[in-house]
Amino acid sequence: MTEVETKKPQESLQDRLAQVVELLQRHRLVEDLTHRQEGQHQDRVEGLVHRQNLAELQRKLDDLHSADVAYILEALPLEERLTIWQLVKADRDGDILLEVSDAVRETLLADMEDHEILAAAKEMDADELADLASELPRDVVHELMETLDAQQRERVRSALSYEEDQVGALMDFEMVTIREDVSLEVVLRYLRRLKELPGHTDKLFVVDYDGVLKGVLSIKRLLVNDPEKQVAEVMANDPVSFHPDEDAYDAAQAFERYDLISAPVVDKNGKLIGRLTIDEMVDLIREESESEVLNMAGLREEEDIFASVWKSLRNRWAWLAVNLVTAFLASRVIGLFEGSIEKLVALAALMPIVAGIGGNSGNQTITMIVRAMALDQVSTGNTSRLIRKELGVSLINGLVWGGVIGIVAYLLYDSWSLGVVMTAAMTLNLLLAALMGVLIPMTLVRLGRDPAMGASVMITAVTDSGGFFIFLGLASIFLM
Amino acid sequence: MTEVETKKPQESLQDRLAQVVELLQRHRLVEDLTHRQEGQHQDRVEGLVHRQNLAELQRKLDDLHSADVAYILEALPLEERLTIWQLVKADRDGDILLEVSDAVRETLLADMEDHEILAAAKEMDADELADLASELPRDVVHELMETLDAQQRERVRSALSYEEDQVGALMDFEMVTIREDVSLEVVLRYLRRLKELPGHTDKLFVVDYDGVLKGVLSIKRLLVNDPEKQVAEVMANDPVSFHPDEDAYDAAQAFERYDLISAPVVDKNGKLIGRLTIDEMVDLIREESESEVLNMAGLREEEDIFASVWKSLRNRWAWLAVNLVTAFLASRVIGLFEGSIEKLVALAALMPIVAGIGGNSGNQTITMIVRAMALDQVSTGNTSRLIRKELGVSLINGLVWGGVIGIVAYLLYDSWSLGVVMTAAMTLNLLLAALMGVLIPMTLVRLGRDPAMGASVMITAVTDSGGFFIFLGLASIFLM
Repeated sequence: MTEVETKKPQESLQDRLAQVVELLQRHRLVEDLTHRQEGQHQDRVEGLVHRQNLAELQRKLDDLHSADVAYILEALPLEERLTIWQLVKADRDGDILLEVSDAVRETLLADMEDHEILAAAKEMDADELADLASELPRDVVHELMETLDAQQRERVRSALSYEEDQVGALMDFEMVTIREDVSLEVVLRYLRRLKELPGHTDKLFVVDYDGVLKGVLSIKRLLVNDPEKQVAEVMANDPVSFHPDEDAYDAAQAFERYDLISAPVVDKNGKLIGRLTIDEMVDLIREESESEVLNMAGLREEEDIFASVWKSLRNRWAWLAVNLVTAFLASRVIGLFEGSIEKLVALAALMPIVAGIGGNSGNQTITMIVRAMALDQVSTGNTSRLIRKELGVSLINGLVWGGVIGIVAYLLYDSWSLGVVMTAAMTLNLLLAALMGVLIPMTLVRLGRDPAMGASVMITAVTDSGGFFIFLGLASIFLM
Repeated sequence: MTEVETKKPQESLQDRLAQVVELLQRHRLVEDLTHRQEGQHQDRVEGLVHRQNLAELQRKLDDLHSADVAYILEALPLEERLTIWQLVKADRDGDILLEVSDAVRETLLADMEDHEILAAAKEMDADELADLASELPRDVVHELMETLDAQQRERVRSALSYEEDQVGALMDFEMVTIREDVSLEVVLRYLRRLKELPGHTDKLFVVDYDGVLKGVLSIKRLLVNDPEKQVAEVMANDPVSFHPDEDAYDAAQAFERYDLISAPVVDKNGKLIGRLTIDEMVDLIREESESEVLNMAGLREEEDIFASVWKSLRNRWAWLAVNLVTAFLASRVIGLFEGSIEKLVALAALMPIVAGIGGNSGNQTITMIVRAMALDQVSTGNTSRLIRKELGVSLINGLVWGGVIGIVAYLLYDSWSLGVVMTAAMTLNLLLAALMGVLIPMTLVRLGRDPAMGASVMITAVTDSGGFFIFLGLASIFLM
């Protein structure tokens, strides 16, 4: 898609969302009225008001940037979302489809006829098509591929051949290439003939006759250097470049670290095959942090907040089921000590404190570690040092807070031995929490899994079962 | 600081970190040896090896981009970090100080003499100085301000006058400004005279004689249009611009939404006073998502993973203390029902299941809502709809999984009434979790607080106390 000059947002997005919602409500109110008074003489008047409201809504939407329409679609429940979608989809459905999240896109595509999808997709670039292909009906994709020229088709195929998290799946093909043996003056004239430059063009790619990348010429250098100079004199010979099978998250971190705007993607022979741009990388950084948050809470994937109850259930069941099993195991641990609890019912009241504080402390540790891992700051080389530090923190927390709660237990139940058991159990469970808070994400990474995956559910499972076992075990030994 | 042409990373960052660590270890090993064999004849040989290792390390570090050195400093424990810092700080301490996180910067500054800090700071731009000012010793800042010219001093003061989360604190002052009544040819000649353009210059700012922003001329348009044309014909009149007192997160979202690389900042009279660039916005997006993760787990602020035990304790105590209180309350709820537990000890084993599943489910809900709030998708207008949806999900989860666990309870304890109480309690606690999962973050926002703040601790508090109360209450009524 060609880039549109962005309009200045006069009001905040939230304001505009509120206006759209208000217009929608008026629209619906009138529709209800019209429906009730069908066949009566007010019909025409209501129909007029109705059309006026719709026209105002349409005008409002036409004024908005596609990204803003996408935002509004995201923030609306399904029914309202589809009303808006009907109003905008004729014009710029393609742009908007590319802006919305996967979950919302699915609901929009479900509302479109095949020929509408086809029309929208025809406006797209090869890399954009490849992004959407997996979500489009199979015969639409088939028909679409036939309308493309050979180069485009090849590009879509190539983009589709990479995993979602590889550089190849995120690159676009809008490179401006030049030769190294021409003057900057020639380059400037060449650019003028192009009439338009692709978005995010901060550098031109210098290639030889075989398409092998020789360097990059930044636009900044092009502008400040003498036009008589040759490209080869001015270009950077050794630019940051990526391979299509590299991990996209690593590329995003490189963009962040080196403040890149665009970067070439080359195959293993050094041939230029595409480019990465900062906008894709920003989306990736955002998605990565979000999936970290969601994964830690045991949510499988991005869930549109207005998703149907059924879709939400599917998203949440996997980890709830895991939690059910772990909770049951914790319950069986308690079951082992029913005899002790019968003798000293205070144990039942105190045991959730040991488990709860352990869970909280373990969650703090695991969050720290998962975050450091996402930033590549944790390697296996420093595991033992991290464990020592976390054990130190837990030991102090256990003695201090465990001591406090031990005193409270003594005051409540008038038993100093119960207080001591409480303090000891808290300390031991916090040490367990620290150890597992480091080891669980490390182990997941060694197994090639996402360290954030259900981290919270797993650490809680350990601190619950562990906490009950330690506390009730100590109590059975020393208090019975 | 002027921008450096980035070098192509030949190896992954992790590899380079490993190499540095290895060199450091060799360095230290030799140091130990030298120390032990002091005065012996091997001394000279060891000293030689030592110097060779240090030289190799120094070479390695000199090859690295400042951002990569910063990464390595972040990933090393304090002692090693300072060894590396000694090796690099003479040259490019300023660049590196700007790249590292706040927590690590503090440790580096503590290791520097005032005159070293002063030398580093003298290389910095006004906006960079303002970023660091709060962390520098007071007399260094004072001395620094005196060395600046009037305009620079004014800029530092202005940047310091804004809150950390306002646009004014993040803007820089490296704008290239032009007039609207000149030809593109003149602009091109003017740029050539500048010799160098600031980083992230994708557009020039068109201002009138009073400095009021009239429009922006994108470099892309400058390049493809006829040099005879006037700036006014080609520029965009209505660019996205920001005010210095706007919320920086909103600006970051606008950058993401409209794919901006740089944007003008204007005061309330429309006068151009600075600009925002995508690199600052990317950092902000990253920080924002990170603080969301940390806040949900009840961690106060960014904690360097190698922070001292004492610093870690301070970071984690606030929410641990809150958790201690809530756990104690949950324990007192159980205390209310000690009589029932004494009669039926199975209750003690089953009650953590009700609380645990409620906590997990509530965490899923609250994570969804906090995330949607961070993306501005939740307004008070759709609260009731969200609550209805979450209640629906919980009702089904409660009946299904509560039913399963009810059957298990029946099989274990051979009491169908216990099974029914279990199912009912699970369902009610999941409904409570859903309700509070929506209401807690909404209430925090209404009170002007961060919705993620200790969200996890709070929802768990509710589902623990609530779960125990519901389960033990129902059991006391129907089973006793």
